[in-house]
Amino acid sequence: MLKLSFERILFILLIFIPISIVMELTHSNPVFIFFTAALAIIPLAGFMGKATEELSKQVGAGLGGLLNATFGNATELIIAIFALQAGLFEVVKASITGGIIGNMLLIVGCSMLFGGLKREKQTFNPQVQGANSTMLALAAVGLIMPALVSHIFDFNTVETLSLGVSFILVITYIFSLLFSLRTHKHLYSCEEDPEECKPKWSKNKAIMVLLLTTAVIAMESEFLVGAVEPVSASLGLTELFIGVIVVAIIGNAAEHSTAILMAIKNKMDLSLGIAIGSSTQIALLIAPVLVFVSYIWGNPMTLVFNQFEVVAIIAAVVIANMICSDGESNWFEGVQLIALYAMMGVVFFLI
Amino acid sequence: MLKLSFERILFILLIFIPISIVMELTHSNPVFIFFTAALAIIPLAGFMGKATEELSKQVGAGLGGLLNATFGNATELIIAIFALQAGLFEVVKASITGGIIGNMLLIVGCSMLFGGLKREKQTFNPQVQGANSTMLALAAVGLIMPALVSHIFDFNTVETLSLGVSFILVITYIFSLLFSLRTHKHLYSCEEDPEECKPKWSKNKAIMVLLLTTAVIAMESEFLVGAVEPVSASLGLTELFIGVIVVAIIGNAAEHSTAILMAIKNKMDLSLGIAIGSSTQIALLIAPVLVFVSYIWGNPMTLVFNQFEVVAIIAAVVIANMICSDGESNWFEGVQLIALYAMMGVVFFLI
Amino acid sequence: MLKLSFERILFILLIFIPISIVMELTHSNPVFIFFTAALAIIPLAGFMGKATEELSKQVGAGLGGLLNATFGNATELIIAIFALQAGLFEVVKASITGGIIGNMLLIVGCSMLFGGLKREKQTFNPQVQGANSTMLALAAVGLIMPALVSHIFDFNTVETLSLGVSFILVITYIFSLLFSLRTHKHLYSCEEDPEECKPKWSKNKAIMVLLLTTAVIAMESEFLVGAVEPVSASLGLTELFIGVIVVAIIGNAAEHSTAILMAIKNKMDLSLGIAIGSSTQIALLIAPVLVFVSYIWGNPMTLVFNQFEVVAIIAAVVIANMICSDGESNWFEGVQLIALYAMMGVVFFLI
Repeated sequence: MLKLSFERILFILLIFIPISIVMELTHSNPVFIFFTAALAIIPLAGFMGKATEELSKQVGAGLGGLLNATFGNATELIIAIFALQAGLFEVVKASITGGIIGNMLLIVGCSMLFGGLKREKQTFNPQVQGANSTMLALAAVGLIMPALVSHIFDFNTVETLSLGVSFILVITYIFSLLFSLRTHKHLYSCEEDPEECKPKWSKNKAIMVLLLTTAVIAMESEFLVGAVEPVSASLGLTELFIGVIVVAIIGNAAEHSTAILMAIKNKMDLSLGIAIGSSTQIALLIAPVLVFVSYIWGNPMTLVFNQFEVVAIIAAVVIANMICSDGESNWFEGVQLIALYAMMGVVFFLI
Repeated sequence: MLKLSFERILFILLIFIPISIVMELTHSNPVFIFFTAALAIIPLAGFMGKATEELSKQVGAGLGGLLNATFGNATELIIAIFALQAGLFEVVKASITGGIIGNMLLIVGCSMLFGGLKREKQTFNPQVQGANSTMLALAAVGLIMPALVSHIFDFNTVETLSLGVSFILVITYIFSLLFSLRTHKHLYSCEEDPEECKPKWSKNKAIMVLLLTTAVIAMESEFLVGAVEPVSASLGLTELFIGVIVVAIIGNAAEHSTAILMAIKNKMDLSLGIAIGSSTQIALLIAPVLVFVSYIWGNPMTLVFNQFEVVAIIAAVVIANMICSDGESNWFEGVQLIALYAMMGVVFFLI
Repeated sequence: MLKLSFERILFILLIFIPISIVMELTHSNPVFIFFTAALAIIPLAGFMGKATEELSKQVGAGLGGLLNATFGNATELIIAIFALQAGLFEVVKASITGGIIGNMLLIVGCSMLFGGLKREKQTFNPQVQGANSTMLALAAVGLIMPALVSHIFDFNTVETLSLGVSFILVITYIFSLLFSLRTHKHLYSCEEDPEECKPKWSKNKAIMVLLLTTAVIAMESEFLVGAVEPVSASLGLTELFIGVIVVAIIGNAAEHSTAILMAIKNKMDLSLGIAIGSSTQIALLIAPVLVFVSYIWGNPMTLVFNQFEVVAIIAAVVIANMICSDGESNWFEGVQLIALYAMMGVVFFLI
């Protein structure tokens, strides 16, 4: 019932695809373009996620896991690549920060809050979520390193450092796939509910939806990114705020809803797997890929996050680790994570 | 026997009430006024705590918990409000820092040390103390945020941020009361020893003592605060040192003794509940209330702590979390916390 | 078989003792002197460690533990004292940093990686390793304090602070010996394998080897330290890099190999005890002793680490704590620690 209405909302939101196209073609107010494109991306990302999931069920565990791992944050990557092309480096980096803290604080927080509302406590596998959040802590150290040296080093050294860190992060990510898909895959298997593992779409349908959504997301991302600067000017919001709060939420809205729905159904491992896994992937795969792409394009983006982003990432990682390390959650832990996100929001809004 | 002599010490210290009044009226050396007022506050805070406890036993669990939660750090609040009125913002903020690190390091440290001296180890509920120390970590992030942005923002923005953070902290505190007094109250109940839960004072006596001690503490706080500046000048101590080490200890001396006594009796949950709970309350309730009061008075105090306070708070929170997360303690963990407090003391003394 | 070939390698490396002496006497290229002295120190440190271990088995648990605790990092101490005498303060501090992060990240990482390769997971006593890594976190706070105040304080105050912190660290170290050798020695006993506890060398042999290796290490350290400046100039490496990466590894190479061998044999408590214990000892004993020695010599070295060292130490301590707190490890946790070390390596190389 809940699931059904959730999918229906996604279908209804598809109406924003034609609306955003009309807006773009008629050179409407960029604020309208920005928000209609954003609303259009939400269901597209949702169906892309669904298609990835369906496809991955049909190609064997190994390749399936790889598919999930690679397409998991495809929407964010597409938006970020268009922003990169437009030279909006601050927006790109802010959307990385926003993706990490949004997942670790807002989504994990909402999951623990809504999941814990009518329960004494919820439990999850601390080994799996602990591994994920430790990996994120490692990535956080890597991501903040260039910021720490940017005052003393020249640009070339910071660039080299960004490339070096990115390289190490990607290697670690590859090892993490080896860990979760091969040597310790039993920790991640969906034993609980075999129903969930059965494919519901045909392989061809899944591939078609995947290709189609990717194409439309790319188009909408171009609309969205093109409107960032005028929107930031006319609404008086900084590009940092748009990146951290707005862009980071859009790309993941559907996935986020799934994480919260899973928590309400008391499937905390699935829920945290989505949210923390998404953070980890942004830090260890998306961020490095963006550094590489910008380098290849000859206009290298370094990983120099600003001071607030650095503090936000460290705080999110450390506190989420404290909360996840015992394998138990309750609604108040959710409230705390949301409170931390709200504080970050105030800071990024005021800057 | 031990308890008896402890109460007797409190009674004896009451002698400093008339002494401090005479000192003040005869305009004696401010150093004498400062220390006699300080010594007078110790038993007053002790009896106020006792009265709160007795009253809270007789008004039902919900209201009782609320009373305890609100009056728990009343002495510190009264002292801080007088310091606020006198414009001693650095002393106020230093006493917030001192209250947090004093409880988390010195008091928890002494409890674990003395409690663990003749025992292999002591155990406590990691879920409860974990929740408390996570909440403190959250508050720590909020409290240090304004300091991080103070270099770039103008005063008004920092003030807005301080108000925003204070607001979020108070909301979180209210939710924590809902958690500990309603949805998860069984975690905090005094099941172990029903004897402890029986009232020993009549309701009227408790109310009388509460009103009387509040009034006298207010008077002594005025003496104390009035003497801070001359004392700091004549003893060559900074206001920071006086705030962090001296003021923070006075307001809580009686409560601190209780925490350590409970640890010696192997009631670690009660002991840690007092010490960590007190830290949490200072960070999530007292600090925000002081920001609101100063704002209403038209001379707003921002939450811009200095660099050493920021490091001290972070270090205290992280290390206390490491030590409390396993639900076990031994004397050496106590030594480590005290050693950390001693290092902080050296730094604050040297500044 | 593995053990045998390991000892054989040490014997073969002894050939570098005469080679380095010839190099030094013929005033060869400092790069050759540096590397032959370094290679000569590796087996010497190994045999010194063996001799300490054998001797400690024969003098009773208390004195034996003390011997192990004091001579455990003797090689590093000797090298550092020669560097101190030569005024190479940056190299000394860098070797402290390098010793801490090398043990916590590279050695613990390799142990968890190689030990976990063919195992689902390995387990260890979280109480013991937790105590060790908490102690290290405490020491880390102490070690970074002087760096935090160095911008505002004059040199004398920073010196006083360094002495104060060193004093507190040594006191804590002494209490830690009381804990591990007396009140909680059962946690650290070698119950598992009584074979390991039997002496294999005679007492006289052990004492002879101890004296001899100490003397030769001192000589080789003088060669090594004398060559640091020309080597750093001719290879284009900073003294920081040489200190953090090279010097820190040489002094501990043999001990490190033992830690990894123990992990491969699934004796994780022994393995982590060596690696984390070594870090702890560097932070709480070696660093303070070097501060005291420099002070007595009239040319005081302060504990002002540079920004990268501070971040490296904090990151190493926090992440190693996250990984060690659950009492379980797997190969991927090892990979993560090594990845973190590699990132640090890149930073220190680029500076």
